[in-house]
Amino acid sequence: MNNSKKFVLQIKCPDQSGLIAAFTHGIAQTGANILDLTQHTSKDINTFFLRALIECDSDAIPRIKEHFSKLESEKSMEWKLRDAEHKPRLALFGSTTDHCFYELLLSHRDGALPCEWACIISNHTVLEPLSRSFNLPFFLVPSDIPKPEQEKKFNEILRASKTEGIVLARYMQILSKEFTEAWKYKIINIHHGFLPAFKGAKPYHQAWAKGVKIIGATAHFATADLDQGPIIWQSVQQVVDTGSIEQFIQMGKEVEKRTLLYALKLWLEHRVFLHEERTFIL
Amino acid sequence: MNNSKKFVLQIKCPDQSGLIAAFTHGIAQTGANILDLTQHTSKDINTFFLRALIECDSDAIPRIKEHFSKLESEKSMEWKLRDAEHKPRLALFGSTTDHCFYELLLSHRDGALPCEWACIISNHTVLEPLSRSFNLPFFLVPSDIPKPEQEKKFNEILRASKTEGIVLARYMQILSKEFTEAWKYKIINIHHGFLPAFKGAKPYHQAWAKGVKIIGATAHFATADLDQGPIIWQSVQQVVDTGSIEQFIQMGKEVEKRTLLYALKLWLEHRVFLHEERTFIL
Amino acid sequence: MNNSKKFVLQIKCPDQSGLIAAFTHGIAQTGANILDLTQHTSKDINTFFLRALIECDSDAIPRIKEHFSKLESEKSMEWKLRDAEHKPRLALFGSTTDHCFYELLLSHRDGALPCEWACIISNHTVLEPLSRSFNLPFFLVPSDIPKPEQEKKFNEILRASKTEGIVLARYMQILSKEFTEAWKYKIINIHHGFLPAFKGAKPYHQAWAKGVKIIGATAHFATADLDQGPIIWQSVQQVVDTGSIEQFIQMGKEVEKRTLLYALKLWLEHRVFLHEERTFIL
Amino acid sequence: MNNSKKFVLQIKCPDQSGLIAAFTHGIAQTGANILDLTQHTSKDINTFFLRALIECDSDAIPRIKEHFSKLESEKSMEWKLRDAEHKPRLALFGSTTDHCFYELLLSHRDGALPCEWACIISNHTVLEPLSRSFNLPFFLVPSDIPKPEQEKKFNEILRASKTEGIVLARYMQILSKEFTEAWKYKIINIHHGFLPAFKGAKPYHQAWAKGVKIIGATAHFATADLDQGPIIWQSVQQVVDTGSIEQFIQMGKEVEKRTLLYALKLWLEHRVFLHEERTFIL
Repeated sequence: MNNSKKFVLQIKCPDQSGLIAAFTHGIAQTGANILDLTQHTSKDINTFFLRALIECDSDAIPRIKEHFSKLESEKSMEWKLRDAEHKPRLALFGSTTDHCFYELLLSHRDGALPCEWACIISNHTVLEPLSRSFNLPFFLVPSDIPKPEQEKKFNEILRASKTEGIVLARYMQILSKEFTEAWKYKIINIHHGFLPAFKGAKPYHQAWAKGVKIIGATAHFATADLDQGPIIWQSVQQVVDTGSIEQFIQMGKEVEKRTLLYALKLWLEHRVFLHEERTFIL
Repeated sequence: MNNSKKFVLQIKCPDQSGLIAAFTHGIAQTGANILDLTQHTSKDINTFFLRALIECDSDAIPRIKEHFSKLESEKSMEWKLRDAEHKPRLALFGSTTDHCFYELLLSHRDGALPCEWACIISNHTVLEPLSRSFNLPFFLVPSDIPKPEQEKKFNEILRASKTEGIVLARYMQILSKEFTEAWKYKIINIHHGFLPAFKGAKPYHQAWAKGVKIIGATAHFATADLDQGPIIWQSVQQVVDTGSIEQFIQMGKEVEKRTLLYALKLWLEHRVFLHEERTFIL
Repeated sequence: MNNSKKFVLQIKCPDQSGLIAAFTHGIAQTGANILDLTQHTSKDINTFFLRALIECDSDAIPRIKEHFSKLESEKSMEWKLRDAEHKPRLALFGSTTDHCFYELLLSHRDGALPCEWACIISNHTVLEPLSRSFNLPFFLVPSDIPKPEQEKKFNEILRASKTEGIVLARYMQILSKEFTEAWKYKIINIHHGFLPAFKGAKPYHQAWAKGVKIIGATAHFATADLDQGPIIWQSVQQVVDTGSIEQFIQMGKEVEKRTLLYALKLWLEHRVFLHEERTFIL
Repeated sequence: MNNSKKFVLQIKCPDQSGLIAAFTHGIAQTGANILDLTQHTSKDINTFFLRALIECDSDAIPRIKEHFSKLESEKSMEWKLRDAEHKPRLALFGSTTDHCFYELLLSHRDGALPCEWACIISNHTVLEPLSRSFNLPFFLVPSDIPKPEQEKKFNEILRASKTEGIVLARYMQILSKEFTEAWKYKIINIHHGFLPAFKGAKPYHQAWAKGVKIIGATAHFATADLDQGPIIWQSVQQVVDTGSIEQFIQMGKEVEKRTLLYALKLWLEHRVFLHEERTFIL
């Protein structure tokens, strides 16, 4: 094909017979080629999910859109067509620790993350030299100015830098309902503890005091109720309960950074499906 | 549908454009319904794999077979159509330890394994009471008679009990090339160590002497070169290197039984694809 | 030594200089021999823990006791001397599922658990044949009689069978404050979910609905607030979020049984130390 | 104490009664204080290992040395006394990849590694800017000059920079028997695959071709037979066998860096004991 492009198609609808056939038949008629297809039907909630990587001539796009718009009403189908080669521009929010920053920035440099960095935003200056060394614009928005003012600044920076998504890489500040709603399912947070077990502040201290034998990290979409958003990925690490809180935190950092990296990757590959505040990974 | 039945279709062929479309189009024409589909293209070996659970009227089967026979030559496609509700009759081979036996027999009783037990074969009488308590026919074939004679007996028992597959649940005896060839990719073995690292006898002693920090178990198809068959599943367990060999073996048992159970499940659900002595799990 | 016996000595006290020396010096003076010693000082709570396996002539016991009684007041030391060869008599409480029962009974038969089974108690008859097949006395105490009456029966059975500890192997019933206090730190429960995240009923359903990517099990001492007792051991298992609740439960069973087995082993080897409702494993 | 200092004492000897007593008694007599003690007797090889952190006045050192010199012959004891506050100067050898470098350098900066960096040596210039950004002297020793000449240069650099140990952070070159013997048990290598399963070049390609379901990394002491040295630490990661070789390598990097970090930490804390080409971690 001449102007061939790749797209990811995400579909979600109530389970009903003939769904895969309707999908593939339609795709075939538009002249598109299916390169990769994953599909899952969750019996417990009677819902069908499909993710397909397709290749087609740019001319075919309107036909594909028309086809799925028809299915939309016929089958109560929700669908999204995303340019597989588009690298979303992401803003990285941080505070004073840099382990997640290095993990994301280095992995990105190695080609493991299909995104661009739009900007770095922080409430401290600690991460400024690191941002500069990766040639990334750094913006300081201190936490001691009123929250509405902070978020007004965020929005100005995000708009100016054409940001499409946000990664909270240990940002440690609560965001307002307005802000999280405006960026719904577009903010990924890493929680430095094992949700929903240890919510709120100092989860490692909580875990340590409870004598847990395993620690973990949870990457999730940020909502106003910060630690309650849909879970994207979780990892764990066995810990020696005779360690100190400092060792817990040190080991926690390692789990945090790989959990955040993996979750971000899943999201950038359009593998994360949402259904009633929970996710399915395809 | 009236006489509707479920089938699993397995496909493997060289990668080429239009494969999923050709598949789904054909299925649609025969009136079958695709319930579940997993597909993978391995770029490194340029090979396409597909597993689909389909539902159709029994009348449609000849049409499906005709369709795929045509694709067979057109696309150099290998395919298999399997009755999803057929529970294969399996023979369990054991020796003196019963941890894998209990794991498989109890999981089967709980409905976790879609198979039937055809018979129990052992070179010792230790497992006879256990077999009887599960109402399973037990056959003693001692290891001190010549191997060809042993395997002649195996074949008689397996034929009489209409066995379709074999699980070596810590059988500990080498099988001949003739026997393993006759049952190619139909014998699952659990290797009590981490292949290909510790082949042959006493792998836990080898691992212990080497000071490994992690032990594992490998479930694989048995071939004449016993420990070299295609790997189906592997699991690991961190071990304290200050433990004794006995503790290694004890912890190894736990890994063995869950690895064998999981591998058998994958095989019974027709999720194991073979390509040049390696497997892909779909 | 002639009448030499083995003992486990457990020590806990506020951290202070010279503790190990005071301990080992005293042991040496009594003529006892230290075979194995593990020690940990938790800086965060300023507390010293020590577990030692010692060997001595029975005559030395009074001298050892005298020595540590003296340290008791001098160093604010809590200590316990336990016969290492004594196998405590345990009662197994169950309900209708048998996966934990098989795991414990078979591991015990294989010599992996240094205890004796005093009796089996259940609120259903389902586990009776299994109990009989292991030659264990089975007692039915239905849950529909008033709880005080149930617990009166428990105490009669436990007394008559000389029970020293209790394992709740998926017993699924709440025990009174009186009963759990009477058996404080002598009842081990397996919680079929990842505490403190998913307390109460149907934790796998809760976890599934929340879309967690990892499930786990927690073995802990039972208290009146059933799921809040000190954690002894935890294990986890990565799960595919596209599985059904049934698959979650099935996979959960595997984690449950190995977590309970491991926790019981730690307890029987006197490796579990308690400090303000948390445990340290030595 | 005035001039009090901390030391780690490592002991290894044939098992015999009274060892801990002899040790602690001796320590007490010299006026030293035991802060932390771990001990293990491996029954299978009849060997006793002990690691103790002790605190004493500098004046006590000669007395401690005298005491253990006496035990040396009496008990066939091997022992080492190490200044716990001494941070060994390490050389980092690298080639073209930097994931292990960042992991070690950043963890060191965060205080997690008790060592100093003496120098960076590489056969390529790729890692030079990174070295400079951490203010570390960088030395290029190309691989195309004869090996004896390379190693002569190594020794000059190592001597000049007062290097006490070497970390091969994906250096990818074989070292001579002379060189590895001269630095025996002082060179830590990370093998990018799961030893002893996949030795030699391109282990991920080997693993991928074999269809393994789990990959791992092994940190070990380097010997002339590069991949055969004593194992210090191993970690694993479950992999999807439908991934590409590139994804295997990418996931392998994550395992490599955390395995190397952890092994180095164990070594710097003097927790690694050697016995006939295997290690015990205390």
